[in-house]
Amino acid sequence: MDLNTHIAGVGRYLPKRVIDNETLAAELGVTPQAIFERSGVISRHRADPEETSSMMAARAAEEALADAGIEAKDLDLILNASGLPEQAIPDMAPLIQRHLGLSASGIPSFSIHSTCLSFLSAVEVASAFIQLGRFKRVLICSSEIPSAGLNRAEIKTAGLLGDAAAAVVLTPSPEGSASRIHSIGFSTYSEGAYLTQVPGGGTRLHPMKPEAKPEDGYFQMQGYAVLQMALRYGPEAFERIWPGLSRGLGDIEVAITHQPSAAGMEGFAHFFGRERLVVTLPKLGNCVAASIPATLYEAVSTGRLKRGQRALMVGTGAGLSIGGIVFTY
Amino acid sequence: MDLNTHIAGVGRYLPKRVIDNETLAAELGVTPQAIFERSGVISRHRADPEETSSMMAARAAEEALADAGIEAKDLDLILNASGLPEQAIPDMAPLIQRHLGLSASGIPSFSIHSTCLSFLSAVEVASAFIQLGRFKRVLICSSEIPSAGLNRAEIKTAGLLGDAAAAVVLTPSPEGSASRIHSIGFSTYSEGAYLTQVPGGGTRLHPMKPEAKPEDGYFQMQGYAVLQMALRYGPEAFERIWPGLSRGLGDIEVAITHQPSAAGMEGFAHFFGRERLVVTLPKLGNCVAASIPATLYEAVSTGRLKRGQRALMVGTGAGLSIGGIVFTY
Repeated sequence: MDLNTHIAGVGRYLPKRVIDNETLAAELGVTPQAIFERSGVISRHRADPEETSSMMAARAAEEALADAGIEAKDLDLILNASGLPEQAIPDMAPLIQRHLGLSASGIPSFSIHSTCLSFLSAVEVASAFIQLGRFKRVLICSSEIPSAGLNRAEIKTAGLLGDAAAAVVLTPSPEGSASRIHSIGFSTYSEGAYLTQVPGGGTRLHPMKPEAKPEDGYFQMQGYAVLQMALRYGPEAFERIWPGLSRGLGDIEVAITHQPSAAGMEGFAHFFGRERLVVTLPKLGNCVAASIPATLYEAVSTGRLKRGQRALMVGTGAGLSIGGIVFTY
Repeated sequence: MDLNTHIAGVGRYLPKRVIDNETLAAELGVTPQAIFERSGVISRHRADPEETSSMMAARAAEEALADAGIEAKDLDLILNASGLPEQAIPDMAPLIQRHLGLSASGIPSFSIHSTCLSFLSAVEVASAFIQLGRFKRVLICSSEIPSAGLNRAEIKTAGLLGDAAAAVVLTPSPEGSASRIHSIGFSTYSEGAYLTQVPGGGTRLHPMKPEAKPEDGYFQMQGYAVLQMALRYGPEAFERIWPGLSRGLGDIEVAITHQPSAAGMEGFAHFFGRERLVVTLPKLGNCVAASIPATLYEAVSTGRLKRGQRALMVGTGAGLSIGGIVFTY
């Protein structure tokens, strides 16, 4: 069943500070070339202390609201869709609401978390609400500061991850518009649950426990094992997104993917070809849940994705989950 | 618009170890009486190391599945709806899927977080999916181990919080059943965002930062300020849940509330009267997001809530959010 979802506005906030491979190489004590070879990233943004995750989300949201021609106070729902929290409690959605000057508004605000797929899960939730007529103007924000937990001894992740925020405003499709979601599919295979992880930050290795170490907050990624699992389960999971997708894009004109790593992008190219892929990895890095909406922003703002075109948003996330949405922009 | 949601099964898991006020008083160096006076709690459960949050969730889920007569492999969606994560990444939903023996199943699994209201937010999301026919058998688990971050210098929270997990299985309402959701309302007022918080566990006070302290993982609650805000915004928020609710329960027969504290329960009694309130605070404590489904379990398993009766689930959560659902069980 098609869902009556319209991407009314998009926004993005990139931290002011850009870290190129030369700068990072000096920090890590390696060569710029080694960083590029292991990550596929040329430069990435890094948040300064005043650029908190909720502040970045709100700045991206303001651009998305302006793009949609909607005022913040007229929102019906605010969804935070980020993999990394700003703090454990409260969830980040109220913190974003607060940065938007809506702290007495009562606008319902909550968070959705499926790591790198959080944005797509939130689009699924928002679209169900919009289809039912329950909410009409929904803000979704993904904002990530993975640089807070970089393991500087591990070139691959330290070079790979980038900070960014991106946001969309979703509404019902206006009269005469072709905007629709055609299909949504998610698959979770928890045999890969610990292949990508931040083991700390929760009750298992709570900082008050004697066995807890600051390093529990490192982002850990067994990239090759993730890629192997994604290639194994990809065909089945892609067919759940859109029949035929495991054999190629068909009439889908643009593919907006998560930007997991150079190897991960090769994996997407293997299934979808190179030509229709939108790539932000070299200049933004892997921005966790913000990668997909930041790449959507790139596609829209550069004219790669135009109104009426059919597109795919797709990714893999810790879990291991594979999910995607086929839509007309 | 009514939503076609049926609570097909309920389950609960309480950690084996029970900590009564005498035991806790000896730990904290205070009197049992002081603990009771500040919290309203007589005893609470505390998870041992092998009782992880995802394991507890899965045990509660197994009871809910058996109650519903549904096999785990036939689930369409698994939602984790907890305030406290087990670890930052992945979110807890895949970890629950794994404990249910579904690690190669592909069943989509993600998390919803609105602190103490996470369960109600997840019921709202699941109900939208069920109403659209997108998913038919949805598992929701709330599992909390607040004892991992107790500030033992603060009698009030150390005495108040309890560990617990609870789960429900939701399906479309069967032929001939009166089960329905009649109304859902959530309101978030982020001026109270920092009144209840765990400041650590995220990027703001990441453990690798020099200013981070293990104590950032403490559960902090300015109970009186929360209560004041809840009383101020309650009438407006309650009217959004169900017209007339700010003036009392009307024809709603049972009120299943979050169990925030003795003072918080007095607040609910102020609006709804004492007679129809289901109270689990004295024996379970405040179990964060698990309080509402654990109290629902209590109501169903003791016969307080029977099929065909109209009930309210309602609570306040960090954010500050106030939310509720009126349904026929």
